[in-house]
Amino acid sequence: MSENSLPIIMTMIGDPAGVGPEVCIKALATGAPYETSRPVLIGSLDAVQRAIAYTGLPLKARAIRRLDEARFERNVLDVLDDGELAAGEWTIGEASGACGRAVRRWMDEATRLAEEGKIAGWIMAPVDRTSMKIGTGLDDFDEIQPPNTYLFRVSGNLRIVPISEHIPISEVPSTVKKDLVLRVIDLVHTTLLDWGYENPHIGVAGLNPHSRGPEEVAEIKPAIAAAIAAGKKITGPVPPDSIFRQCVEGKYDAVVSMYHDQGQIALKTSSFEGACSMYLGLPYLHLTVPHGTAFDIAGKNQAQHLSMLSSMNTAGLLATGRFKRGA
Amino acid sequence: MSENSLPIIMTMIGDPAGVGPEVCIKALATGAPYETSRPVLIGSLDAVQRAIAYTGLPLKARAIRRLDEARFERNVLDVLDDGELAAGEWTIGEASGACGRAVRRWMDEATRLAEEGKIAGWIMAPVDRTSMKIGTGLDDFDEIQPPNTYLFRVSGNLRIVPISEHIPISEVPSTVKKDLVLRVIDLVHTTLLDWGYENPHIGVAGLNPHSRGPEEVAEIKPAIAAAIAAGKKITGPVPPDSIFRQCVEGKYDAVVSMYHDQGQIALKTSSFEGACSMYLGLPYLHLTVPHGTAFDIAGKNQAQHLSMLSSMNTAGLLATGRFKRGA
Repeated sequence: MSENSLPIIMTMIGDPAGVGPEVCIKALATGAPYETSRPVLIGSLDAVQRAIAYTGLPLKARAIRRLDEARFERNVLDVLDDGELAAGEWTIGEASGACGRAVRRWMDEATRLAEEGKIAGWIMAPVDRTSMKIGTGLDDFDEIQPPNTYLFRVSGNLRIVPISEHIPISEVPSTVKKDLVLRVIDLVHTTLLDWGYENPHIGVAGLNPHSRGPEEVAEIKPAIAAAIAAGKKITGPVPPDSIFRQCVEGKYDAVVSMYHDQGQIALKTSSFEGACSMYLGLPYLHLTVPHGTAFDIAGKNQAQHLSMLSSMNTAGLLATGRFKRGA
Repeated sequence: MSENSLPIIMTMIGDPAGVGPEVCIKALATGAPYETSRPVLIGSLDAVQRAIAYTGLPLKARAIRRLDEARFERNVLDVLDDGELAAGEWTIGEASGACGRAVRRWMDEATRLAEEGKIAGWIMAPVDRTSMKIGTGLDDFDEIQPPNTYLFRVSGNLRIVPISEHIPISEVPSTVKKDLVLRVIDLVHTTLLDWGYENPHIGVAGLNPHSRGPEEVAEIKPAIAAAIAAGKKITGPVPPDSIFRQCVEGKYDAVVSMYHDQGQIALKTSSFEGACSMYLGLPYLHLTVPHGTAFDIAGKNQAQHLSMLSSMNTAGLLATGRFKRGA
């Protein structure tokens, strides 16, 4: 594949006041994302240049107003910048409405470019709950997740999709329903087929300790039985405290988990660094990193870029059909 | 400390038909438990001798009828055997009422010896749910846990005590009450003081994703505030998907978790081998291993003894006041 036939992967720099710009440029400075994609940033040139200055990385950045102005040169980062966020409107390490509004515009533009097929997909660096609330009136942070999508987390061999995100534990049992479990199994199965797996093996977690509870009998087992009847390779319900270790050891290509923390505890305890997440259920690639804006260390050249690098590499491998082999 | 002043640690061999006898003798064959204790087994001489035969380990075993007959010689294992389980009554890899009844007698005898101060404590190798049910009518396996105790799990730096054990997720929120959280914090604190910690740092997990829920506000925070007011060093409620990683990294001396799987997922995903568990709230040491009888591999010399070895070593270090330094 020649360089200019590589897919374009756009990365939104996240909240300019957080660690987003820093992790973006550190990841790009490794050079690795250029092996599988033509990377381009969307956000504020000013924020990117400040990050270059305080990290001391041997990079330059240039603003572009339209995607077709991008040159994709290594070490000269293209930043699609609408010019609407003024340098004086934000301070490193502080939430602001100006940053929240800018992030919303950049998200919308990246989504539009992906929907129009101008880019293969886009990655979202960390955005800030408070900035989004002040700037856009967003009340529930979970609303930034596109509707009808599920978050697929990848960290080494761990690949986990929960059937729900940030709901209280008291509401978890009522969400464990046959239809939803089956819908997520089907979506994960279709996605893995798209990624080149021939007969993916999906593990399905139980809800209760040792998978012994009413929801396993009434909801999870019937969903698994239906998926197996449709020819899929499914194992479960597997005791929640065993399934993730088995996944680490390579038994499953992915695990469907029954609630947010069930999978997140496994993922963050075992190997959080280098984890990335992608939304399943969209017609284009859309990835995020599993950490926040970390305002306390923003601007200090202390941020760890391994998750962003993993997102960029994973996006490139997926867009070039090499995820299974390359991961 | 001279050898015959070392504390006596008794290990109950578990269900004779499971992997218990095998993991006991493999752990003792390493020699390590003799560094911190005088080890003695309780169970069936026949079962121990069969395990010696199929593992091919260079060990012998002798039956004793009273504890004061024990000689604690390396490579000649003392087995306190009441002689009531006949060799023909059980088959390797199969549950039986005879084994369930024998296990119950051995548990009672070990408990009696510990309560009378004849031994410093005892370790329980895996017992079988079905054998216990057939042999003793035990309906709820959790009843083998001594009343008013909490299970402290240790695996490397991870040290976790949940406020409840095997209850359905739907019942978890109603158990997260200030009084119970505070009681477990206090018990863990007292235990860590007993083990030689001067000002132990205890992390308390939240219940809900990112610790954002009603139980954090109404129950967990007030419990933590009360513990801090009493002079304890407590951090929390910490987001459940962050606290265990922090514990692995050494931030806490122990973590109080809000339900069984919350901690077990962290523990089993990160480093299950070599984990052991102890009951807090008893006046003597009582440890278990976190795996089962594994009837499918019993008698095949395939069982992994690292958890049993960890239990024996941990018991010895605790009994000799060297846990903190030696762990």
